[in-house]
Amino acid sequence: MVTILNHRNKMIEHYMKGMLLAHPHLAKLPDQPIIYNRNQNPDLIPILSGGGSGHEPAHIGFVGDAMLTAAVYGDLFTPPSWEQILAALRFLNKGKGVFVIVKNFEADIREFSKAIHQARSEGIAVKYIVSHDDISVEPKKNFQMRHRGLAGTILLHKILGQAALLGADLDELEQVAFGLATEIATIGFATKSATIPNAALPLFDLPENDISFGIGIHGEEGYRTVPFSSSEQLAVEITNKLQMKFHWQEKDAFILLVNNLGTTTELEQGIFLNDLGQLLDLEGLDIAYIKNGKYMTSLDMTGISVTLARLKDPIWLDYLKAPTNAFAW
Amino acid sequence: MVTILNHRNKMIEHYMKGMLLAHPHLAKLPDQPIIYNRNQNPDLIPILSGGGSGHEPAHIGFVGDAMLTAAVYGDLFTPPSWEQILAALRFLNKGKGVFVIVKNFEADIREFSKAIHQARSEGIAVKYIVSHDDISVEPKKNFQMRHRGLAGTILLHKILGQAALLGADLDELEQVAFGLATEIATIGFATKSATIPNAALPLFDLPENDISFGIGIHGEEGYRTVPFSSSEQLAVEITNKLQMKFHWQEKDAFILLVNNLGTTTELEQGIFLNDLGQLLDLEGLDIAYIKNGKYMTSLDMTGISVTLARLKDPIWLDYLKAPTNAFAW
Repeated sequence: MVTILNHRNKMIEHYMKGMLLAHPHLAKLPDQPIIYNRNQNPDLIPILSGGGSGHEPAHIGFVGDAMLTAAVYGDLFTPPSWEQILAALRFLNKGKGVFVIVKNFEADIREFSKAIHQARSEGIAVKYIVSHDDISVEPKKNFQMRHRGLAGTILLHKILGQAALLGADLDELEQVAFGLATEIATIGFATKSATIPNAALPLFDLPENDISFGIGIHGEEGYRTVPFSSSEQLAVEITNKLQMKFHWQEKDAFILLVNNLGTTTELEQGIFLNDLGQLLDLEGLDIAYIKNGKYMTSLDMTGISVTLARLKDPIWLDYLKAPTNAFAW
Repeated sequence: MVTILNHRNKMIEHYMKGMLLAHPHLAKLPDQPIIYNRNQNPDLIPILSGGGSGHEPAHIGFVGDAMLTAAVYGDLFTPPSWEQILAALRFLNKGKGVFVIVKNFEADIREFSKAIHQARSEGIAVKYIVSHDDISVEPKKNFQMRHRGLAGTILLHKILGQAALLGADLDELEQVAFGLATEIATIGFATKSATIPNAALPLFDLPENDISFGIGIHGEEGYRTVPFSSSEQLAVEITNKLQMKFHWQEKDAFILLVNNLGTTTELEQGIFLNDLGQLLDLEGLDIAYIKNGKYMTSLDMTGISVTLARLKDPIWLDYLKAPTNAFAW
């Protein structure tokens, strides 16, 4: 299979240049892997997120008014270094501090923590949230929950971004973030593993007609691989796992985000969304908001992740519906 | 490879139900394959488009305020019947007539013509444009231009939709449509053919490391197949073909639309866009507007199409930038 590129080690740089062409509200900090919104209001708290590349359109696609102020990116599946994150914190801080959204992966936490520690020692106020929406389990470690940061992170970007736009200070953002992050759950499946460009083999082995549940976004295997039977059966498994997390009751209100993990067709994602919607409807849930698209991918993986967030605070709905020019929302 | 579905002959119906769930501004006409915008102003001219399915998010993704009023759809790669198109024309007409955008394919023209003829005989005023933006050539027929309707059709949806919203009457819409349609050119390439779901074989044969230029959106082969070398080389070939159509000169202004034909990754599309943008910049063109995304696909084909439209009338730029709630714009 062809990968459309010029040089493997220039992929990310070329992608970013393409996005800067297409989206004039974005700019790049010279000599740093940092893309920011040109329109910045020094009276508002800037929001930073980021992580490894290979998850496009995340995170650059969420930089814009009422979402992220900037995104800092690493190479494929590798977080940016703490020095790069620190450069972003220094750049964004206009005296009121910076709020950071980081996905729960060991390497990300290590680099972001070090950068935040250093920034604080320089007098920059920083608060942060670790997104940990993954509810899939570890097949080889007693089925512990993995709690990785997955596509549900995008809900933090949107809701915190709008809160910041409306003038929330660092403490208020932290409060919203803590309230929201624990209410988000994500689980997905793949019908085809991702392959690192120009590598010979896919990142995990998945037989032709099988699907894997609970996959990660860096080629991590799922907790179970079974032959594909129907879209409806996929929706049943996903719904069961979500119910085990939420123990919902009839009329409970939720936000639903259905995410293309890379190369799923529009047609198939729509069919799956229909099955999922029917099941959630049978459960009597109030799905107050649906977002369906491609938000956080894993290169060319084929698959879908499903995020539910309990609508604990109705204001979140207004924040989700508020306009943004971030190109991937 | 798994296709996520329940029943092959319910695919389109299930997809449409999924989209209706996700996009509350859309509704379906009972017993007809017609999706319409709930918000209709009887003082404005409604715009209808449509065609075969398998091109998702086209055309349902362009139904909304300031774009299409409705889309009528057929089965996979098969246009709706003239009776279904007629039902759409009758439904949409509030006394001022209907404007129709149809893609240039033999079967589509046959069904839409018959429906328009019948509607006119019932006293419904109908005007239409045939989009024919394809500039690829027929390899077996003396390299005649194919002039099929491809992703450039979306520019007609957006610009005519905004013109209609601003109160253009049927004659004015026709005038804009004729002026615009002849200025649009599209050409693309594929790295993998589409496969009809549950069929054993792809629609055309493309060796593992080859790319095909000038492919259609129904599995039609391209005019040339060559081994992949680089994203830049793809951009060179595409730019050359576009220049042969436009004979542009420095400072000429254009609209650029880069379209994911199905399962291209975000990363690769961004890299290609960067190469294309550099070349057009070297040509000295003024690319006044860039739209990069997934607009008109061919099932799970991997590839990209490029549309350029000469910006003959600067008002088109305002129309492109105007807001819409159509979900795929």
